[in-house]
Amino acid sequence: MTNLQSIETPALILDAGRMEANVARMHARMRALGVNLRPHVKTAKCAEVAERCVAGQSGAITVSTLAEAEFFAAQGAKDILYAVGLAPNKLEHVRALRDRGVDLSVITDNVDMARRMRGLPVLVEIDCDGHRSGLEPGDPAIVEVGRAVVAAGGELRGVMTHAGSSYDCRSVAAIRAMAEQERRAVVSAVGALRAAGLPCPVVSVGSTPTATYAESLDGVTEVRAGVFVFFDLVMAGISVCREEDIAVSVLASVIGHQREKGWVIVDAGWMALSRDRGTAKQPLDQGYGLVCDVDGRPLEDTIVVEANQEHGVLAHRSGDPHKMPDLPVGALVRILPNHACATAGQYAEYQVVRGGREIGARWMRLQGH
Amino acid sequence: MTNLQSIETPALILDAGRMEANVARMHARMRALGVNLRPHVKTAKCAEVAERCVAGQSGAITVSTLAEAEFFAAQGAKDILYAVGLAPNKLEHVRALRDRGVDLSVITDNVDMARRMRGLPVLVEIDCDGHRSGLEPGDPAIVEVGRAVVAAGGELRGVMTHAGSSYDCRSVAAIRAMAEQERRAVVSAVGALRAAGLPCPVVSVGSTPTATYAESLDGVTEVRAGVFVFFDLVMAGISVCREEDIAVSVLASVIGHQREKGWVIVDAGWMALSRDRGTAKQPLDQGYGLVCDVDGRPLEDTIVVEANQEHGVLAHRSGDPHKMPDLPVGALVRILPNHACATAGQYAEYQVVRGGREIGARWMRLQGH
Repeated sequence: MTNLQSIETPALILDAGRMEANVARMHARMRALGVNLRPHVKTAKCAEVAERCVAGQSGAITVSTLAEAEFFAAQGAKDILYAVGLAPNKLEHVRALRDRGVDLSVITDNVDMARRMRGLPVLVEIDCDGHRSGLEPGDPAIVEVGRAVVAAGGELRGVMTHAGSSYDCRSVAAIRAMAEQERRAVVSAVGALRAAGLPCPVVSVGSTPTATYAESLDGVTEVRAGVFVFFDLVMAGISVCREEDIAVSVLASVIGHQREKGWVIVDAGWMALSRDRGTAKQPLDQGYGLVCDVDGRPLEDTIVVEANQEHGVLAHRSGDPHKMPDLPVGALVRILPNHACATAGQYAEYQVVRGGREIGARWMRLQGH
Repeated sequence: MTNLQSIETPALILDAGRMEANVARMHARMRALGVNLRPHVKTAKCAEVAERCVAGQSGAITVSTLAEAEFFAAQGAKDILYAVGLAPNKLEHVRALRDRGVDLSVITDNVDMARRMRGLPVLVEIDCDGHRSGLEPGDPAIVEVGRAVVAAGGELRGVMTHAGSSYDCRSVAAIRAMAEQERRAVVSAVGALRAAGLPCPVVSVGSTPTATYAESLDGVTEVRAGVFVFFDLVMAGISVCREEDIAVSVLASVIGHQREKGWVIVDAGWMALSRDRGTAKQPLDQGYGLVCDVDGRPLEDTIVVEANQEHGVLAHRSGDPHKMPDLPVGALVRILPNHACATAGQYAEYQVVRGGREIGARWMRLQGH
């Protein structure tokens, strides 16, 4: 049996026990809130992980690229929401997927695209927090887009929003308020569409923080969330998870030292960790990641302070060389990521463990666009 | 014939004419300086690009992972330097590659690893600028490591350094000075080794900025450089290239607007662009990239101000909505990257053009670790 001490580094480690506990917790939340989970598979991009996320749910998933839609359709997914505004050059691909029996639905926030989406099931994208795209809840264009979908022979499937700003909340109370803002945005939008005589079955919200702390999802039919499956330091930094819930880490080896500076050099740089610095704006900046021993126990206040392409520099948060743990050349560390989606995105497979060092399986990840 | 207007976005575009001009310019520099170019293939990770880089040179290459060594060995590379300090868990893989007839050499900066590198050709890593790993030029440990290599039955191949700090230089004069500092560091180190009776044929330096502006490489035998092949906004920001030399860009489609904010939303986020913000610390911050029209002409002062996983937000540098160019839904843009290595690292292939919109070839890129 291979284990963490017999593989080449860097490698992406997935603790299946933690992941399954994260999924079970989110499923329990969905049951309590009376909604279906439509997991966003962009975080894991992995058949085995998606399978666990949809167990006991409707089987519907959310994707962020058509490559993901292809991959998961090949795994048997039948109900797929492509949750990025559609570009005209993808229309043909969407139709081809639908012709193969996949109920692939799309989103837009403008009449231009709604007219070109002839015959497709469409959700109108609502902007609940000024974060990026979508129409504001009170915007009369919501009904215009809905009418354009129907006029083009499409099916107005519903409305959707994503409270991306929840990542910037600094308290649980703020996340709860954001969840309510997200809910109200889609409930208001769907109300306007229904009042205009446009039926609209799906009312979809989602972000891991709001899904974790929403107190009511009245009027909502489904939740989309992705990063909950693995969690990461950004989520831990806003109390959405604990550090010990983080299910993915990067295994790296010590390759040298700059002892007078208190630096330990490892073979995991930004190709292994990603360039994501999501904790930089949080109260506790975790650099390019928090360093743990090979068993996943955090080494107190040791972080990745710098990353080149294949080199990472570990140091104590204080900069004090005397506070660095003893990590000889060849020692293994595991680095918890700032952002699970970005770090996992750098790999073609997961080395799957369950708590210990033994690698029980290798699960493939979809790469590329 | 396919062209940029008939493919799905996002896509990685390589302008082969620009790339070949960049390579020709670097080759001319190497001839003028009397050294061999050992191109760093980690930037392009592409057989067709590497072939052009080694044309007229010795054929030697530099890699940053053993996956690259495997890939380029399969393409016929015989002389490969793995330029990241070796971890013990890669020793077996290095030996397996050598057993297949590849002259794969490795580096270290410590006696621990030197002892474990029994029989391998080793270069001692020198730290010329305090940037990351390596031994300082005057450090007696250089000779200790050299002796440990020989005592372990290895071949002391030479010394190497990388002036990574040249990326932070703010003038051509500063880059020239850094190039001289880089040269002196390895010349001093090899002098110490030779004085101790340790023969040391290879004296290797390299970074794209120092390779571009070095005035003398006396005593140096080879230059390693990677990003010169494509260039990027970070290099343009320190006068190592011009914007019009940048050979890679990301093709993206407009999918929506937030007109009152002056935002244009495109289907290229950090998965398409990478999270690299290398220009953030330069005088001209280019956000997540500089926006050009479909033919690669920069749209004045339009940059990617925010990136989510698959969404990019374009805005005018001033934030003024009235200064944004008219980009209707479906319009194509090309985004010049901050850091070519990081952006290209997000793709499995290049769409190859020569100045125009016609895609003449698709070149495969190595992905993963």
